[in-house]
Amino acid sequence: MREEISEQFRALQLHITEKLERMDALGKFHEDSWTRSEGGGGFTRVIKNGAILEKGGVAFSAVHGDVSDDMKQQLQMEGASFFATGVSIVLHPKHPRHPIMHMNVRYFELDSGEYWFGGGIDMTPHYVDKSKAMLFHRSLKEVCDRHHPAFYKEFKPWADRYFFLPHRGETRGIGGIFYDHKNEQNTGLSKTALLHFSIALGELFPVVYSEQVNFNELTEPTIEEKQWQALRRGRYVEFNLLHDKGTKFGIYSGGRTESILMSMPPEANWEYDYTPTSDSEEEATLNILKTIPDWISQ
Amino acid sequence: MREEISEQFRALQLHITEKLERMDALGKFHEDSWTRSEGGGGFTRVIKNGAILEKGGVAFSAVHGDVSDDMKQQLQMEGASFFATGVSIVLHPKHPRHPIMHMNVRYFELDSGEYWFGGGIDMTPHYVDKSKAMLFHRSLKEVCDRHHPAFYKEFKPWADRYFFLPHRGETRGIGGIFYDHKNEQNTGLSKTALLHFSIALGELFPVVYSEQVNFNELTEPTIEEKQWQALRRGRYVEFNLLHDKGTKFGIYSGGRTESILMSMPPEANWEYDYTPTSDSEEEATLNILKTIPDWISQ
Repeated sequence: MREEISEQFRALQLHITEKLERMDALGKFHEDSWTRSEGGGGFTRVIKNGAILEKGGVAFSAVHGDVSDDMKQQLQMEGASFFATGVSIVLHPKHPRHPIMHMNVRYFELDSGEYWFGGGIDMTPHYVDKSKAMLFHRSLKEVCDRHHPAFYKEFKPWADRYFFLPHRGETRGIGGIFYDHKNEQNTGLSKTALLHFSIALGELFPVVYSEQVNFNELTEPTIEEKQWQALRRGRYVEFNLLHDKGTKFGIYSGGRTESILMSMPPEANWEYDYTPTSDSEEEATLNILKTIPDWISQ
Repeated sequence: MREEISEQFRALQLHITEKLERMDALGKFHEDSWTRSEGGGGFTRVIKNGAILEKGGVAFSAVHGDVSDDMKQQLQMEGASFFATGVSIVLHPKHPRHPIMHMNVRYFELDSGEYWFGGGIDMTPHYVDKSKAMLFHRSLKEVCDRHHPAFYKEFKPWADRYFFLPHRGETRGIGGIFYDHKNEQNTGLSKTALLHFSIALGELFPVVYSEQVNFNELTEPTIEEKQWQALRRGRYVEFNLLHDKGTKFGIYSGGRTESILMSMPPEANWEYDYTPTSDSEEEATLNILKTIPDWISQ
């Protein structure tokens, strides 16, 4: 069934990039393929300088091989050989009033026969718009509910815990859903049903992204908005390089660096001890990132 | 002797910032002090928008407390309580033809009575100038040689191994020296002599930085030079957040985030799969970073 899963993931990647190109109307994805000397490879599709998307990537990979010592140590996994396939997305929009958004769906298998699915979607607005945050969570809950009544309730707080920067005491954004190590035993869903859930999440991605975009004429961002966006992009880098398990897995399993780090933003900035002006929109966003709102029943 | 070491380190910080202010002639260091709830604290001195230095920090800290589970796991250290003091510097120059430079000297002690010194200086030019790289290494070797005949020979390759980005197959710059876990047993030098070596290295820092700066009128950087600088700053971020043990120690020992991440650059950039034009200066620099030159006997 490995082949079926990776074929469906590859088709999902093509579906998503087609939808995103249609949304952007200007930018086009460029595809690179790569192979991994230890086994497998992938296709990385990257867009830049679009009308909406400044830099974004939608990556597919299917890799296999021996579990290396680095993987054992860094990822605390047991087993002799593995197979992993997935689709990962990070979009960095041009306009600070549009959000960064991330999605990942993945399937993992060990030679022992053990397998699991993982994934999630989360949103990082530079400026939190509460009604847009609620809309985003409602869409995620709807897809979760269609597949399992307990998923949203379990996966929403999981995202809140996962997408958290302990050294900042902030979440990376307004969360979303996150799950890992899900199989038939712990969900009651067959492998096929779990695959369907992964595909449904992937297909939801371009829909929820488009819902966040203001297609009417947006005013030109101010210098303050662009500066704030650059600082928030810096935080995004901190999360991905210090904490993100997907990035670590990629780096330590000998993945293709450019495909893993396609998640890095353009034009990030760090300013020592930056504090937003009081009562500013920047301060309001930071305050929300220091709390964990329930975005459904607000 | 803890107090003597931390007092000398604090004096070293003041000496270095005074020298750097004199060199920059425009920028001034601003000082923040902080305390750590578990014990100790520090002074962080930051400069920005100077004539030479776009962003730089010189941090002093002296912290103590219990060895936490996070520290044990992340730093593989044994012991119940610790004391750590040090001075750390990272300078990001405005002009792409000036180098990023880093220095750290530190002293660590466990409740068992075990102690050690560590530190180093390394240079990350955006564009490698071979004669400047040689000058830098000769200055480091001279100070090493004055304290121990074997130091440079041991610490230069240690820096080459340490300041390496395995996922890029590149060194972060042209190296320098790096050492750790040095005490009387493994060097034959007394604690006082090792402290003198740390102070000598620290005092060398503003001297070797000034040697790299072109104080004659530098031409305005081109767009290509600024773009390349931003990409190299991105690599610097990757090293510090993915690999640097000092950053990890700070983050996991509950250090002050803004003081630890003062090393982050302004205006960093990531471009997917960037390849320099062939026969360009950018390509020449990258090629040098993929080798480990002996900068003394070239």
